[in-house]
Amino acid sequence: MAKDQKKQPRPKAETPKGFRDYFGADVTERKEMLDRIAAIYHRHGFDPLETSAVETVEALGKFLPDVDRPNAGVFAWQEADVPGGGSGDWLALRYDLTAPLARVAAQFRNDLPSPYRRYAMGPVWRNEKPGPGRFRQFYQCDADTVGSASVAADAEICGMLADALEAVGIQRGDYLVRVNNRKVLNGILEEMGVTAGEQADAVLRTIDKFDKIGEQGVRELLTTGRKDDSGAFIDGIGLAAEAADPVLAFLTSKGADNGATLTNLRAAVGASEMGAEGVDELAQIADLLAAQGVGPDRVVIDPSIVRGMGYYTGPVFEAELTFEILDEKGRKRQFGSVAGGGRYDGLVERFTGQKVPATGVSIGVDRLLAALRAKGLAGRDNHGPVVVTVMDKARMVDYQAMAAELRAAGIRAEVYLGNPKNFGNQLKYADKRASPVAIIQGEDEAARGVVQVKDLILGAKIAAEASLDEWKAQPAQTEVARTDLVAGVRKIIGQ
Amino acid sequence: MAKDQKKQPRPKAETPKGFRDYFGADVTERKEMLDRIAAIYHRHGFDPLETSAVETVEALGKFLPDVDRPNAGVFAWQEADVPGGGSGDWLALRYDLTAPLARVAAQFRNDLPSPYRRYAMGPVWRNEKPGPGRFRQFYQCDADTVGSASVAADAEICGMLADALEAVGIQRGDYLVRVNNRKVLNGILEEMGVTAGEQADAVLRTIDKFDKIGEQGVRELLTTGRKDDSGAFIDGIGLAAEAADPVLAFLTSKGADNGATLTNLRAAVGASEMGAEGVDELAQIADLLAAQGVGPDRVVIDPSIVRGMGYYTGPVFEAELTFEILDEKGRKRQFGSVAGGGRYDGLVERFTGQKVPATGVSIGVDRLLAALRAKGLAGRDNHGPVVVTVMDKARMVDYQAMAAELRAAGIRAEVYLGNPKNFGNQLKYADKRASPVAIIQGEDEAARGVVQVKDLILGAKIAAEASLDEWKAQPAQTEVARTDLVAGVRKIIGQ
Repeated sequence: MAKDQKKQPRPKAETPKGFRDYFGADVTERKEMLDRIAAIYHRHGFDPLETSAVETVEALGKFLPDVDRPNAGVFAWQEADVPGGGSGDWLALRYDLTAPLARVAAQFRNDLPSPYRRYAMGPVWRNEKPGPGRFRQFYQCDADTVGSASVAADAEICGMLADALEAVGIQRGDYLVRVNNRKVLNGILEEMGVTAGEQADAVLRTIDKFDKIGEQGVRELLTTGRKDDSGAFIDGIGLAAEAADPVLAFLTSKGADNGATLTNLRAAVGASEMGAEGVDELAQIADLLAAQGVGPDRVVIDPSIVRGMGYYTGPVFEAELTFEILDEKGRKRQFGSVAGGGRYDGLVERFTGQKVPATGVSIGVDRLLAALRAKGLAGRDNHGPVVVTVMDKARMVDYQAMAAELRAAGIRAEVYLGNPKNFGNQLKYADKRASPVAIIQGEDEAARGVVQVKDLILGAKIAAEASLDEWKAQPAQTEVARTDLVAGVRKIIGQ
Repeated sequence: MAKDQKKQPRPKAETPKGFRDYFGADVTERKEMLDRIAAIYHRHGFDPLETSAVETVEALGKFLPDVDRPNAGVFAWQEADVPGGGSGDWLALRYDLTAPLARVAAQFRNDLPSPYRRYAMGPVWRNEKPGPGRFRQFYQCDADTVGSASVAADAEICGMLADALEAVGIQRGDYLVRVNNRKVLNGILEEMGVTAGEQADAVLRTIDKFDKIGEQGVRELLTTGRKDDSGAFIDGIGLAAEAADPVLAFLTSKGADNGATLTNLRAAVGASEMGAEGVDELAQIADLLAAQGVGPDRVVIDPSIVRGMGYYTGPVFEAELTFEILDEKGRKRQFGSVAGGGRYDGLVERFTGQKVPATGVSIGVDRLLAALRAKGLAGRDNHGPVVVTVMDKARMVDYQAMAAELRAAGIRAEVYLGNPKNFGNQLKYADKRASPVAIIQGEDEAARGVVQVKDLILGAKIAAEASLDEWKAQPAQTEVARTDLVAGVRKIIGQ
């Protein structure tokens, strides 16, 4: 007793700041979505890879933006000193699935098949300031082909992405995978006489504004500048008027079909060899996709995909959901991007000095899951268990036999295992579990060899407040012979 | 260029010490096993819970053995200082799935259904010295019922565990779940006049040696001491000869069936109320299991389960695989324990001060998976993709169409996307992928409208070395019409 008096203050039971817990359907709905995506990846010959959550800081390399603070953006710690001298390695939680792939591709380069097609799904961690809807642990879902320079690898990933979106329930016509090529953009810059550096970056930033400011706005920003909506004057980049032409030809090159788009792009890149190579690659991708039965209603050449292209060296792609949802203010808006990727070749180079061509896609797990939920496509088969209530504690054995019988028939079922004294608590419990059905068998029913089968979806609202007598009077409740228990439940849950 | 000259030394591409990567079948076989277990848990009304990998050190509490070093055994780090003063929280990676459950059960106690049945599967981390086969990140798989004092909850978990073992492929008769009760053991100590403390611990340690030293050995150690095999004398605990009787009655109480065992146990606990309560609970568990159709060939009362009981307050259980495997030295041995658990009630108390009854089980994921592999029960459906080889780079479109056709028929398939120049490399690649079938269509075959379908499982050994001509001469290769591609592949892989 005396020992109990001086115990330490109680710890707080709190999820750490910026982290969250996932309960029930949170877990199963995401799992179902990822399982369906994995099945598509697997069928395309991709193998799963699961690296550990922990990497050496050295292998992770220079990661998130802030270069002044070496560990900014990641959760890192130093290993205990090595016995016999020397301080331990710095370790960190992975911040994405690409850095571990780079490490694995370098480490196991003599053992892995080449090309190496792999997919990975799992949590990643970011040591960032948490905000509403922004968590410090979240899922990523990536597929990459390492070691193939062929655009067939890019085309394959685009087709696979379209298949994956359909596999999780997105209807054809409700999504579009858009493909562009960084080489085309480089060809345009070449054609304009703009080489790498600040001016090129300024042009890229301007291109990115095309959606908002239109053709005239882009032309003004590329040349002499423009007044924005607020009346403020934004300086132009100072290109000659004719230098802006290739950019605008590029931005407006989307035609009625892939053939028309490719013809327009070919004109836009002019004499640039790099640009012509890029257009050829896009033409090949279109042909390869057609051969796989993937039409332009699913994957389409679209020069407007330019975002985040700095990292990429060839084809880039982005999947967009094209249906409208209501935002938090009840306004309709397009759902937007759920996946993106492209070709890059710096992956293994950091470790080995060798450039290794690679292409890959990353699906935004939380965004895609949110889309499925918005469309009512997630967790359609989720429901709580049938709850066998306990009217008579001494007959627990009988109740357990009922639950076992239901489970043997493939029906999710359990016996109420809390204190059975207050029957209302049992009904509240069933309500909390989102149970479709409660089974009731008191002394009277047991004597007559019957059970009450209660449809809780019909009766949910009343259940929590009703007395036992009211509850029994509900029309949603039917009496069936004990031997018909499974059939009686099936009639309600429709299995 | 000048920039490239002074780049930093290359980082090492290495998995951090004590961690490992999982490739292909490593991932899918474990996933398949856990999915089957999850389906059983789900059918029993258990809900998944996925907490974040990171907890506050405060919430994790005093964890692994070494109490002198507060963070020994876990990977921990301190958050950056809080702006405006104060230092940040200490965070750590979870070391098991029970500590996070305790935190969640306390934090969400007003929202969770009570009782709360949950299962959790996922990695945990231990900052321990790595050794052969000992990793610092590994999987756990737990199911617990929080908030039910009824032994029906314990019985349910035992039956569910038996179902889970069968669901992953362990035959009835190849496993046994043994159940004991900590209260019975406490009753025995009471009957002996031994109360808590050093003497009780010594008795428990002696009981644990029963397997090795037998009845006479236990009797000697409890009383005056004994000579061990090496001739050294081990001091006894110093109990009177008759005080050892209850222990030996307990240890030898396993009867021909549960009824006989219970009768023997009742005699062993004598006048102890605690002991009688324990025996009553075991009798109830036996009845409840029988009602669920779970016989003593699957779950049995067995007083020899005493290991690790310090933590538990009531029923304890352990699942053992009873078949023999060959150990690393080729000797036959029983596979042994793959899961264990029991009733405990300190779970939520640290946080809220309230005792909350709980019972649960943890499956040793790596051990069970090793058992399935030893029995040939893991990954039976795993095979590599059908590889469509590239004989003519210009006809990539045709090869992609073949792969797409196979995939549409549900067959895992891919086109070789490496450099196709050296055909031998394509065959080596297919070998590395464990491909069951390669598809070959050169100029000649294309002209005749046929493809070669090569059975790689038959031809695997020769494949890597053979020339293209030898390869084509293999009897495992058949020519089919291009239109019969899917049927030709199905004939080999038997889908």
